Amino acid sequence: MRITVCLTDNNRPEPWVDNLRAELPDADIAPWSPGDAPADHAVVWAPAQEFLDEQQTLRGLFNIGAGVDALLKLKLPPQTRIVRLDDAGMSVQMAEYVCHALIRHFREFDGYEADAREGKWSYRRPRARNDFPVGVMGLGVLGERVGKAIGQFEFPVMGWSRSPKQIDGIRCFSGDKGFDDFLAASRVLVCLLPLTPGTRGILRRDNLLKLNAGQPGGYIINVARGAHLVDEDLIPLLDAGQLAGATLDVFQSEPLASDHPFWRHPRITVTPHASARTQREESVAQIVTKIRALEAGASFDELPGVVDASRGY
Amino acid sequence: MRITVCLTDNNRPEPWVDNLRAELPDADIAPWSPGDAPADHAVVWAPAQEFLDEQQTLRGLFNIGAGVDALLKLKLPPQTRIVRLDDAGMSVQMAEYVCHALIRHFREFDGYEADAREGKWSYRRPRARNDFPVGVMGLGVLGERVGKAIGQFEFPVMGWSRSPKQIDGIRCFSGDKGFDDFLAASRVLVCLLPLTPGTRGILRRDNLLKLNAGQPGGYIINVARGAHLVDEDLIPLLDAGQLAGATLDVFQSEPLASDHPFWRHPRITVTPHASARTQREESVAQIVTKIRALEAGASFDELPGVVDASRGY
Repeated sequence: MRITVCLTDNNRPEPWVDNLRAELPDADIAPWSPGDAPADHAVVWAPAQEFLDEQQTLRGLFNIGAGVDALLKLKLPPQTRIVRLDDAGMSVQMAEYVCHALIRHFREFDGYEADAREGKWSYRRPRARNDFPVGVMGLGVLGERVGKAIGQFEFPVMGWSRSPKQIDGIRCFSGDKGFDDFLAASRVLVCLLPLTPGTRGILRRDNLLKLNAGQPGGYIINVARGAHLVDEDLIPLLDAGQLAGATLDVFQSEPLASDHPFWRHPRITVTPHASARTQREESVAQIVTKIRALEAGASFDELPGVVDASRGY
Repeated sequence: MRITVCLTDNNRPEPWVDNLRAELPDADIAPWSPGDAPADHAVVWAPAQEFLDEQQTLRGLFNIGAGVDALLKLKLPPQTRIVRLDDAGMSVQMAEYVCHALIRHFREFDGYEADAREGKWSYRRPRARNDFPVGVMGLGVLGERVGKAIGQFEFPVMGWSRSPKQIDGIRCFSGDKGFDDFLAASRVLVCLLPLTPGTRGILRRDNLLKLNAGQPGGYIINVARGAHLVDEDLIPLLDAGQLAGATLDVFQSEPLASDHPFWRHPRITVTPHASARTQREESVAQIVTKIRALEAGASFDELPGVVDASRGY
């Protein structure tokens, strides 16, 4: 069995190759170079079409992240299946990131910090958490974990997904039919959706105006993809006071240009796509488990995380 | 039955009186004035000795907070028992506050924020959560809730209490004997102890040096009482790099003087005793339940939250 590793310039393939070799000592595992013999499986991040053009015998295309929108733009050999990471240490990071942003907003810690810079002992009237229902868009492994973490802090939790779900402690809405009710019932909106033609630009003016039953005070946390948000719609809604703020970890173009207005807007918190980093050891363990199952005769349809290209995740 | 309400100047008694009257319509309930007839029960926050001198028939002295150190300094009539709030909406606030401070430190969000102010898209190497065991001092209602909230984010959780405890997901240490091992096993230290002669000044140099097996990198979160911390010991340990930082919500003297060095130290986050505000509705409901039980013949020893003056909480 031959496994190739093809990552972007920012990610050295060697540590991945070393980890994979330690787990699969009988396989032929190497970083990809143009002209290499075709592989049975590939471990990739944002590979070029040129790479795939050479992989005519490829079976598993293992993405070292949860979002596969970049891979779905490529032309794949007909038998190749895309497999994403299910969790691999990312869901706990997402839960941390979202809870931190939510608590920081709800408890006004930015305001306390500004007061503290002036040596000011301030009093802020406590807010009622029932006034801050949180809506989680996307109820996969990450969304469910994030929703449960939020629920532990006793916020009302709403969830929205394409197909109907039932999750303890989360009031679930689904499909186009449930979307407006979901938005109306949510004040803080957490985006954890896959990026598909149906979700691109979903955080746009007309939808954002439906938050919080149309009342001011909505708050946006985007930890999915920058293209979910219509950048030009966000700032006017903040400046008009319709939205209270936003915490953004992902952007249309990354790194975010240093002159982008998001950096300096007083009600936008920017982080550099840091909400959930891929953890190599856990990711390799998960990919190896799946490769072993395939080699033992399992079909892709039996594995978790295999992408349905028609729905886009 | 007569109930009096005696709060400090910052807290108007009237809303408490109104809430109590709604729940106990047959009782005689009023804000305290000097010379009033003595009451059966009192709802108080930091009352003066003068108040207690007039309450020779008082049975229940209901404190509208969790910490009763201020009440224990007063001379009480012999039959009077102090009852503290058990939770009344405070534990979820404490869990929020501590998780926010912990995640902010662990995930280096202060650093990302400083980078963002300069429009800088930065990369910080992810830290391993197993390198950040969290030690919770005090395992009452608040400490247990805080420990469980931290555990949900997969940090190793240690706990320390006077008497031995067993709590799922928390490695429990107890007493003087277990204290050094607890400190050595903890990197982030959360203080939720009652203030007693035995815990006053417990966050002092020799103890703080034992954190994290004596290695640098300890972090302090104090949400109990300012007198747990020896102020003069903290800043040298931060400046020497032995401690990585501190989030402090409570101070020896409150409000914290505007020229106190804590306000401006780059590795100290100050909040104005805001970690858990008393919630009136929930507190009144709890106090009323206890008063009803007492009036129906229950003894104080059957009620939760009755203070043992000899141990100080």
